[in-house]
Amino acid sequence: MERKRIAVVGVGLIGGSLALQLNEKGLASRIIGVEASDTHAKQALELGLVDEILTMDAAIAASDVVILAIPVDSIVEILPSILDKIDQQILIDLGSTKSALVANVDGHPKRKRYVPAHPMWGTEYSGPAAAVRGAFENKAVVICNPEAADADAVEWTRNMFRKIGMHLIEMDAHDHDLHAAYVSHISHITSFALANTVLEKEREDQAIFEMASAGFESTVRLAKSNPNMWVPILMQNRENVLDVLNEHIAQLRKFKSCLEKENWEYLRELMEDANRIRRILG
Amino acid sequence: MERKRIAVVGVGLIGGSLALQLNEKGLASRIIGVEASDTHAKQALELGLVDEILTMDAAIAASDVVILAIPVDSIVEILPSILDKIDQQILIDLGSTKSALVANVDGHPKRKRYVPAHPMWGTEYSGPAAAVRGAFENKAVVICNPEAADADAVEWTRNMFRKIGMHLIEMDAHDHDLHAAYVSHISHITSFALANTVLEKEREDQAIFEMASAGFESTVRLAKSNPNMWVPILMQNRENVLDVLNEHIAQLRKFKSCLEKENWEYLRELMEDANRIRRILG
Repeated sequence: MERKRIAVVGVGLIGGSLALQLNEKGLASRIIGVEASDTHAKQALELGLVDEILTMDAAIAASDVVILAIPVDSIVEILPSILDKIDQQILIDLGSTKSALVANVDGHPKRKRYVPAHPMWGTEYSGPAAAVRGAFENKAVVICNPEAADADAVEWTRNMFRKIGMHLIEMDAHDHDLHAAYVSHISHITSFALANTVLEKEREDQAIFEMASAGFESTVRLAKSNPNMWVPILMQNRENVLDVLNEHIAQLRKFKSCLEKENWEYLRELMEDANRIRRILG
Repeated sequence: MERKRIAVVGVGLIGGSLALQLNEKGLASRIIGVEASDTHAKQALELGLVDEILTMDAAIAASDVVILAIPVDSIVEILPSILDKIDQQILIDLGSTKSALVANVDGHPKRKRYVPAHPMWGTEYSGPAAAVRGAFENKAVVICNPEAADADAVEWTRNMFRKIGMHLIEMDAHDHDLHAAYVSHISHITSFALANTVLEKEREDQAIFEMASAGFESTVRLAKSNPNMWVPILMQNRENVLDVLNEHIAQLRKFKSCLEKENWEYLRELMEDANRIRRILG
């Protein structure tokens, strides 16, 4: 692959980690950062994530590829104006929702330069200092509605994700948002809610966390996630997330009912059903 | 510490991991396994977890210390009969609940030889092959009602846990069960229920797990846990677990209400509240 000049808009956890991989795999001749936060811009330069920081317009003009790694409310807002400014560049976004983004540029004359993508990797941390080397290796990436973009743009995007070690899944944006609600968004809500459950109790009982173990940490670590990222995701995927949340509360009520009625046979059945997740997680 | 002959009853995940540590730290002159399952008994010998397998009675007679690492329904059932057979041995259990166990030997003439303990470590796997070297290091262990046991028994137990790298917490059995409901038992229920939520959907949509990422795995991995261990824990800690489960469902309903009413300000507040868990998890 010929090296390209790549603009990364938002050099935080996701954008910063991608910049590291683009460099390591020799995909970029130059990486230009665009950053709303001066502190993050400075950090991104110091950490060597980007070669320079430019304004959005200067970055678009100086790049072959523009990659958006900012919260999804910002993506949906600026997508049309970025497409307005694009000539033959490829535009990729890495947001955790897809339907609202795609809908907002439907019919745009430059729509075919845009490839919506979602790499299935993240941590509960944010900012340039949270960037991780080798982050995306052996993870899945979803490319949405590839038929709606130019073949060269989709092909370059596929190759980029393959080179940084990801395996490709392609699907419609609506399917993506439904699946993401089940295998990502609901996990964040349960973690946030579990954290609040225990923190509420801690007000009257200071010693409660002394016993916290790896199992607890595992189920609650996503509660450290950044609201700036997660409020917009849940806003945009509201209906799917509500469906899954209702189903999850219904499942929890089954456990509650078993405990209330001391129905231990059914409790065992529910756990055995859940054990089938071994098939998926290994 | 003088090396002792130690009987480990139940050489699975917990008993097997403890046996490895007792050997490594030079705490045992001999480790005797007691195992209901012939397969597990054979594995425990092959893996070198124990020096020999004996029947319960022979093991008690041949030991200075007896450690119970079996499901809590079995512990509560056999505790009195084991105390009946004990002379000056120390009896320790490692169960995840404490109140029912302690209550069941209240007033027993040998009660003072019994030290109830709960090492805050485990994984979602079980059996001798799941035993982990160095498992308990830097983890917490709760010793309950130390004033109810002989000083020599408590002191030896404290030293054993310190030698294998654990830090001690001491509290009343009822406080233990309340805290365990919050920082361990509820996490297992949320994981079981989350697994069932997604597995239910998978029936109609096979592709749903293709996108599963580390965040999902983290919140759902406890759903692989063994019902033989977890049904009895929830049975014995039923009232505390019901309280926490009700609170957790109430917390989830707050998220649901935000989504239904599109109250994004309050959703942000809930997430910011949950972010305070950073103080605990680091």
